Amino acid sequence: MKNSIESMDRLVNSFTKLPAVGQKTAERYAYAVINMNENDVKEFANNLLQAKQNIKFCKICGNWSEDDVCSICASRSSETICVVKEPKDVVVMERVRNYNGTYHVLHGVLNPLQGKGPDDIRIKELLERVNNGNVKEIIMATNSDVEGEATSMYIARLLKPLGIKVTRLAQGISMGSDIEYADEVTLSRALQDRREI
Amino acid sequence: MKNSIESMDRLVNSFTKLPAVGQKTAERYAYAVINMNENDVKEFANNLLQAKQNIKFCKICGNWSEDDVCSICASRSSETICVVKEPKDVVVMERVRNYNGTYHVLHGVLNPLQGKGPDDIRIKELLERVNNGNVKEIIMATNSDVEGEATSMYIARLLKPLGIKVTRLAQGISMGSDIEYADEVTLSRALQDRREI
Repeated sequence: MKNSIESMDRLVNSFTKLPAVGQKTAERYAYAVINMNENDVKEFANNLLQAKQNIKFCKICGNWSEDDVCSICASRSSETICVVKEPKDVVVMERVRNYNGTYHVLHGVLNPLQGKGPDDIRIKELLERVNNGNVKEIIMATNSDVEGEATSMYIARLLKPLGIKVTRLAQGISMGSDIEYADEVTLSRALQDRREI
Repeated sequence: MKNSIESMDRLVNSFTKLPAVGQKTAERYAYAVINMNENDVKEFANNLLQAKQNIKFCKICGNWSEDDVCSICASRSSETICVVKEPKDVVVMERVRNYNGTYHVLHGVLNPLQGKGPDDIRIKELLERVNNGNVKEIIMATNSDVEGEATSMYIARLLKPLGIKVTRLAQGISMGSDIEYADEVTLSRALQDRREI
C-alpha cells in the first residue's frame, strides 16, 4: 500500500513469523505494541534478545537450559528417563509433581512424510545415555498420534535388547470426560487396558 | 515452577501482554523465538523498538504516522472526512481504493459503561477541523455495533447545525453471503434501505 508506514509494516512482518499468526493477528499485535508504554516495549525487545542469547540446550537431556546441564539433570537420578518430543512437554510433565526422574527431549518425532528419520531426532543420544549409565526404565511420553506412537515403538524395539524396561503413558478416557464423547480408538484402548478396582 | 528458566518466563510474560494471548499461546510463541535464527530475533527486537520510537500520531487526523502530518493529510483535500474508530480502520478503508478524502481517527468510541465520554475520544479535534476548513461531508465509518452507532449519532447531531452533510456507511447484506444466514436486524436494515435497480 502506498501510504503504509514502514516501521509498522516491518513489525507486522516480524509478528507473522510466529506460529499461526496471520496478517490480521500480526496487525493487532503491532497495534497493541504501539499502545504499550515505552518501557514495556523496551523490556519486550530485551526479553527477546536475552531469551535467544541465554537459552541453550542441556547437553544431557536436550531440554532448554541456561547452563550446560539443566537443573533437572544436575539434581536428579537418571534411573528413570521420560522421553518427550519437545521442551514444552517437560514443563507439562513437571506440573504433575510426582515424577522424580530425568527427561530426554527428542526434538521431534519420526515422520517419513516430512523426511524425519531416526538420525534427525535425538535417539542416538538416548542410546548413549542408556549405555553409559545405570538406566532402569524408559517412559515413552510422546504424543498419542501416529508419529508419536511410531517413534515410541521404534525406540522401544531398540532398547528392549539392552534389557531396559520400556513403558508407555497409559491411554484411556480423560479424567472428568463423558464416555459419550470419547472416540472409538480411545474407547477400544481403554477397554483393552481396563484394570480391576 | 522450581525448574523453570528465567529468561524463558520473562519472554512468555512479555508475549502475554499482547491482546488475546494466554499462557499457552505465549509459550508457543516463545518456543518459536528460541528456534528462530539469531538474526531474525535481533530484527524482531529492533522492529519493536523502531516502531514504538518512530510512530507517532498525525496531528491532523490522529492516524499513525512517521511524520508530524501523515501522508494522506499531506496529499489530499479534506472536503470529505471519513471518521473511524482506530488507525487500523484507515488501512481497511484504504484497501477499497476509491475513496480520495482524508480520515479522522477517534481513538475509541463512546462507551458509558467503560466510562468513555465525548471528551475521551477525538471529537473536539474533529469539530476544530470542521470549523477551520472547507469540509463538505463527514462520512461516519464507525463499527456497526451499539457503541459505534451511538458515537455516529452523537457526532452527526453536533455537526448538522453547522451545515455539514453527515453520512453513514450503508448497512445491509454482505456481498456474497446467503440471506438465510443474515440476522434479523441486518435484514430489516437492508429492507429499509432497499434501492431501485
